Amino acid sequence: MTSDPRPHVVIVGGGFGGLWATRALAGRDVRITLIDRRNHHLFQPLLYQVATAGLSAPDIAAPLRHILRAQRNVEVRLGEVVGLDAQARTVSLGDGDSLTYDYLLLASGAMHAYFGHDEWSADAPGLKTLDDALAIRRRLLLAFERAEACDDPAERESWLSFAVVGGGPTGVELAGTLAEIARHTLKREFRNIDPSHAKVRLIEAGPRVLASFPESLSEKARRQLHKLGVEVVTGTPVGSIDDRGYTLGDTFVPARTVLWAAGVAASPLGALLGVERDRAGRVPVSSDLSVPGHPEIFVAGDLASVQQDGKPVPGVAPAAKQMGAHVAKVIGARLDGKPAPAFRYRDFGNLATIGRMAAVVDVHGVKLSGLLAWWFWLLIHVMFLIGFRNRIIVLINWAWAYWSYQRHARIIFGPLDQRDDDGSRA
Amino acid sequence: MTSDPRPHVVIVGGGFGGLWATRALAGRDVRITLIDRRNHHLFQPLLYQVATAGLSAPDIAAPLRHILRAQRNVEVRLGEVVGLDAQARTVSLGDGDSLTYDYLLLASGAMHAYFGHDEWSADAPGLKTLDDALAIRRRLLLAFERAEACDDPAERESWLSFAVVGGGPTGVELAGTLAEIARHTLKREFRNIDPSHAKVRLIEAGPRVLASFPESLSEKARRQLHKLGVEVVTGTPVGSIDDRGYTLGDTFVPARTVLWAAGVAASPLGALLGVERDRAGRVPVSSDLSVPGHPEIFVAGDLASVQQDGKPVPGVAPAAKQMGAHVAKVIGARLDGKPAPAFRYRDFGNLATIGRMAAVVDVHGVKLSGLLAWWFWLLIHVMFLIGFRNRIIVLINWAWAYWSYQRHARIIFGPLDQRDDDGSRA
Repeated sequence: MTSDPRPHVVIVGGGFGGLWATRALAGRDVRITLIDRRNHHLFQPLLYQVATAGLSAPDIAAPLRHILRAQRNVEVRLGEVVGLDAQARTVSLGDGDSLTYDYLLLASGAMHAYFGHDEWSADAPGLKTLDDALAIRRRLLLAFERAEACDDPAERESWLSFAVVGGGPTGVELAGTLAEIARHTLKREFRNIDPSHAKVRLIEAGPRVLASFPESLSEKARRQLHKLGVEVVTGTPVGSIDDRGYTLGDTFVPARTVLWAAGVAASPLGALLGVERDRAGRVPVSSDLSVPGHPEIFVAGDLASVQQDGKPVPGVAPAAKQMGAHVAKVIGARLDGKPAPAFRYRDFGNLATIGRMAAVVDVHGVKLSGLLAWWFWLLIHVMFLIGFRNRIIVLINWAWAYWSYQRHARIIFGPLDQRDDDGSRA
Repeated sequence: MTSDPRPHVVIVGGGFGGLWATRALAGRDVRITLIDRRNHHLFQPLLYQVATAGLSAPDIAAPLRHILRAQRNVEVRLGEVVGLDAQARTVSLGDGDSLTYDYLLLASGAMHAYFGHDEWSADAPGLKTLDDALAIRRRLLLAFERAEACDDPAERESWLSFAVVGGGPTGVELAGTLAEIARHTLKREFRNIDPSHAKVRLIEAGPRVLASFPESLSEKARRQLHKLGVEVVTGTPVGSIDDRGYTLGDTFVPARTVLWAAGVAASPLGALLGVERDRAGRVPVSSDLSVPGHPEIFVAGDLASVQQDGKPVPGVAPAAKQMGAHVAKVIGARLDGKPAPAFRYRDFGNLATIGRMAAVVDVHGVKLSGLLAWWFWLLIHVMFLIGFRNRIIVLINWAWAYWSYQRHARIIFGPLDQRDDDGSRA
């Protein structure tokens, strides 16, 4: 392989950025190595559905090898990048191998961040990977089980008290679905508790939920959440979190289940570049998405800090796809000896779902909310799911959940005496 | 609850035995507590499909609470029974609670057994729970990834060498499906290895596979396995197993993936009874399935040792269901002051699947094999799946797998540097 004369493009990350770049290089005379720590591409916009037991993990994931099997200029490599030598143009992997590149794309995304409170991570898990989603699912389901088996009223109440920290789209989706589960899904299933008495609280430090939407839609979302039974608290940050609850202002609130949807930080891979990064760890890039001083290294997706018309390009799936495809275009232009085009983000709109039949949509100033927005949201998300088969299964699951309020993936994995699957807490 | 005048029936285990007993007591004026360590009933006959990535875990499992939500005389309790006082008629749970019973049914099933070689368990995982299935799936998928990333030919070959120990239905199903995955599912997906060169070996210590079937069907199964590319070795027990391979006779065979389907032992709960048990740990029961000397304690399913016409009743799902239903009938008769009927196992036949379109069926002397047997097998298994929704999803998954050879659940969970999800091996 070292004798292969084709330029070697190494792409780190099989998310929207990396995968879209890989596909866009299909027709080019390059050799691509796509490296990911997971064997699958994940459709992250539906991850909250796995966490809330509405979908199975494989419903929203597809093996990268399978997606790319017909693209013969790609080799998929399961592995973790642990080092980067920009002078020697090599990346090194956790298993000891190293790869020399002609072009490098870092698209390793973001992870949840606790803003200097990493000690909260054990008690307030975040949602970025399938493993995260299964760990959250386990906690949610076990909380109701613990409440059912509990004789002490105060203790029981703390098992039935849920908090979601962070009022962005993920927080809104989690809180809305959680309220539905308590009110409808678990109805009649318990004998000692009434799950519909569970308290679900959404806590946002800023003045309103869904801050990236127009104010009128934030207000609609707040009202829809209220209707579902979610208590929305804005303007107050969480002061501390432990395994018994959290503090809000000076008040300690007993709550055994706290979920974290308050913030993300860019993947630590950006640090390997040795260039200045922004507060969230993102790498500021040139107009062609290359790293200043390193025209052969590109950054795309949540790891890239891109300013456009004085505003940052948001960390959403469409932006990552567009950046990935753009990097492929730039590499193509370089190979052809043509000037590299500048990246321009096309904003197709913004949507978030709230619950079973509620959503908010903002497309080029057209604002929808409620049932119509929900149908629009559903259509868009199922349409963009990778793999024909997944779409059918997801639609059937949704139809079923819609009519029956049931969530088919309510399965607790792992031994009972563990809080998480990873065994980090006995 | 202690003032509830109804007799208290405690049922341990939500498998086929325990669940069928619970349901059969629906109309009776008793109070039932169903205890299980898992929150779900598992359709074990399809567990190998989860292990081989053809089905998602939730496809073959349903929450016990949900199944029993309308049966108001049942309380489902997530918990582990750790103690039994037959004099005081109490069982104690892992969380410190204890329950007093009037009638007790132990239906906690069986687990895989290594016949005095427990040290093999880390290197040759068995298949009894969903967690087992996901751990096996992870190993199978990672083995191909390791082979792809491996430069050393001998090392690579050992990653592409698979052995299934035990030629019963589970072993035959695993080996057949594994060969199909290597030959068809993974076709074209790798660049450095050819998955179809993987070696799949089924090792049976006895003289033939599927020993519980007529000899002619064993022979048909052997031939169908051979056609799928499985090498069947009979009459030779495995001498040792470690993380590099296994010995057969005097020969060490390098193989990084060994699966255990060679034997089961009854659940350790039987030991709590303090009565004599058979070699496999099963509890010999009276004709009404009660424990001799304890007419109020019953045993059903794989934990019960029942002889009929000089032969043991087999450890299969229909037998467990029949025993569970029978225990309910006996309890009913006791409550009515009538004599308890004797249990009689009705054998509806025996079936095992081998691969995509091959199976063997033996129903009252009618023997089928090949495609017709496979359709019969599929019909029966999907028909008996609990929950209407699961059946549709499973059928769609099957139809998809049938036409495309694809297996949608090829998702590796957990961190890369672990062999298993449980982190027991770094």
